[in-house]
Amino acid sequence: MAEPIQHEDASPEVRAVYDEIKALRGVPDVNDFWKHLAHHPALLRRTWDTLRETMRPGALDALTKELVYLAVSISNGCEYCIASHTEAARKQGMSEAMLGELLAVVGMANETNRLVQGLRVPVDEAFRR
Amino acid sequence: MAEPIQHEDASPEVRAVYDEIKALRGVPDVNDFWKHLAHHPALLRRTWDTLRETMRPGALDALTKELVYLAVSISNGCEYCIASHTEAARKQGMSEAMLGELLAVVGMANETNRLVQGLRVPVDEAFRR
Amino acid sequence: MAEPIQHEDASPEVRAVYDEIKALRGVPDVNDFWKHLAHHPALLRRTWDTLRETMRPGALDALTKELVYLAVSISNGCEYCIASHTEAARKQGMSEAMLGELLAVVGMANETNRLVQGLRVPVDEAFRR
Amino acid sequence: MAEPIQHEDASPEVRAVYDEIKALRGVPDVNDFWKHLAHHPALLRRTWDTLRETMRPGALDALTKELVYLAVSISNGCEYCIASHTEAARKQGMSEAMLGELLAVVGMANETNRLVQGLRVPVDEAFRR
Amino acid sequence: MAEPIQHEDASPEVRAVYDEIKALRGVPDVNDFWKHLAHHPALLRRTWDTLRETMRPGALDALTKELVYLAVSISNGCEYCIASHTEAARKQGMSEAMLGELLAVVGMANETNRLVQGLRVPVDEAFRR
Amino acid sequence: MAEPIQHEDASPEVRAVYDEIKALRGVPDVNDFWKHLAHHPALLRRTWDTLRETMRPGALDALTKELVYLAVSISNGCEYCIASHTEAARKQGMSEAMLGELLAVVGMANETNRLVQGLRVPVDEAFRR
Repeated sequence: MAEPIQHEDASPEVRAVYDEIKALRGVPDVNDFWKHLAHHPALLRRTWDTLRETMRPGALDALTKELVYLAVSISNGCEYCIASHTEAARKQGMSEAMLGELLAVVGMANETNRLVQGLRVPVDEAFRR
Repeated sequence: MAEPIQHEDASPEVRAVYDEIKALRGVPDVNDFWKHLAHHPALLRRTWDTLRETMRPGALDALTKELVYLAVSISNGCEYCIASHTEAARKQGMSEAMLGELLAVVGMANETNRLVQGLRVPVDEAFRR
Repeated sequence: MAEPIQHEDASPEVRAVYDEIKALRGVPDVNDFWKHLAHHPALLRRTWDTLRETMRPGALDALTKELVYLAVSISNGCEYCIASHTEAARKQGMSEAMLGELLAVVGMANETNRLVQGLRVPVDEAFRR
Repeated sequence: MAEPIQHEDASPEVRAVYDEIKALRGVPDVNDFWKHLAHHPALLRRTWDTLRETMRPGALDALTKELVYLAVSISNGCEYCIASHTEAARKQGMSEAMLGELLAVVGMANETNRLVQGLRVPVDEAFRR
Repeated sequence: MAEPIQHEDASPEVRAVYDEIKALRGVPDVNDFWKHLAHHPALLRRTWDTLRETMRPGALDALTKELVYLAVSISNGCEYCIASHTEAARKQGMSEAMLGELLAVVGMANETNRLVQGLRVPVDEAFRR
Repeated sequence: MAEPIQHEDASPEVRAVYDEIKALRGVPDVNDFWKHLAHHPALLRRTWDTLRETMRPGALDALTKELVYLAVSISNGCEYCIASHTEAARKQGMSEAMLGELLAVVGMANETNRLVQGLRVPVDEAFRR
């Protein structure tokens, strides 16, 4: 298991990404995800650029995007991602009540997805248009 | 593969569920999912009761709940669910631009979930509190 | 997309597997799964040998094994597998009522799996022993 | 990460659910899953009511239902769920030999699900009826 | 369901992506995936840029990258992706024998992943270093 | 949670499998996966026989097979499997740069798999042949 790369040990290209993350988020240090990803500088750069573009408020606001991110991470059972995006969603305003309702929808979707598939329901004509 | 049960062939308990769905949604007929689920009346009743409670606007509004439902269904690759909840989200106001941003977040979450797991990143101390 | 290999066009080693399947199951022909897998004779042989051993009644009876197989296939959303193992389970005695209860358990497990993960519940001390 | 809510700190509605679980299962305390879910009382109530109905012996007996629950949890890789439902299945009579055969079927189903999809096998005419 | 956007109906920014794909791959037209993604031009551009960078031969050659892509797509059960990347891998030199061995490894990994999780095996000390 | 079965406590049939693994791999002891699987001797034997056949160099070399195994394990989020197959791939020659590119392809495949499914793209005519 590789060690995380700290700011002081990072190459200039890695450090540049760290600095952009810290500046945009207003945090003193980056999460360990980035410090592990830093072993692969080109992947680090692409991932950060795409994440920054994807999570920027647009037709969907920042909170909604974090809720969707969290919902997918819960559905995939990624422990780290659930931990970090629960935190990120809270920073964007997710209340305890919102989290409860999110969990309910994620659970329900996972349940009904399997009911539909187990019943082998063909897609309705109306949805094919 | 079982045939869907139409309103006129349904038992009174199944018909009662169909009527509740039609009344709440203001639609002339229910989707084929419900007509297949009707082969199992107790499951039909429980599923509808839970879905109605879960999707009712609360701390999260109806559109946000549909977006989360759709995100999970896309992530699970459930064709029927994607088709029906894309439609449902559109009825709640999802624009084409919102769909594009939703897809981007769902794709990104699926990508980074695997990067985190492939890199075996331990959960940050800060997220454990 | 490769064409299925029919009995008359099969090599002797493939034909031997087809004959074993037909004999054990008492059917006039094998499913298309086997006819596609036949493009890879070593994999066909290993898969059939393992399947035959795995599904043989033992501590679990044949119906229970088919129910478990079907449950996993529904949870994975594999259309072909759901279709063929629904049929196989019916041959082993699965009633419509049993299918309804199986669907309910599969749906519930998929729902609660995500609730647990979304809530980040640590494993109870009692389960670690 | 939220703290589990103990019985003495729980609201009356949460305590009522705890008491129902303990009475039905004949246990002195509930698992931590319920104590974390208790942060969302409406979801706690709905989840318990559905679980109780779903797992009640019917066309399928209690052991078979636990085996199916466990099989899905293994297939989804939910550590907590595997731990708690292995325990629950043992209480319903699952022997070590049964667990071994269950694992074999779950593994085999996951393997053949992917073979089918990788080979792009169309569903047999016979399964479409 | 949205219609694919053809080259002649595409905006200049979409057309530019189509032209880059056609030039790099030496094909007369792009796959329908791109024509559907074109409803979301910013996502189209980012996806193509990332794909081009990711699939470029480097420490891993083009065939190995296509085999990995195909393996993940099979494991996820994405029909379209399996179809298009089976084709792409064949163009890079994947033989029928290679496909058979790939399927065997993908199936085996899916099987043993679940055996490990069902058995709740802790990670060996030796792998933690 | 069951205890791993050590060599000195193993039955002759289990010991035979351990010895085959150690001889083929040139290692002093087997991983804990095998020691847990040993509680189910028939499954242990079948799993080892299949793994040995599947991972033997053939149309694909040993490194490529390990990369595919690792890619599937990452995509499934199996922590133990990721740890053990990262190690195994390194023994077959996987460099840090190869791992970075593998992660990039696995992430990208998981992302585009969901884009395709979310967009509901029908399979191209050209891929159906």
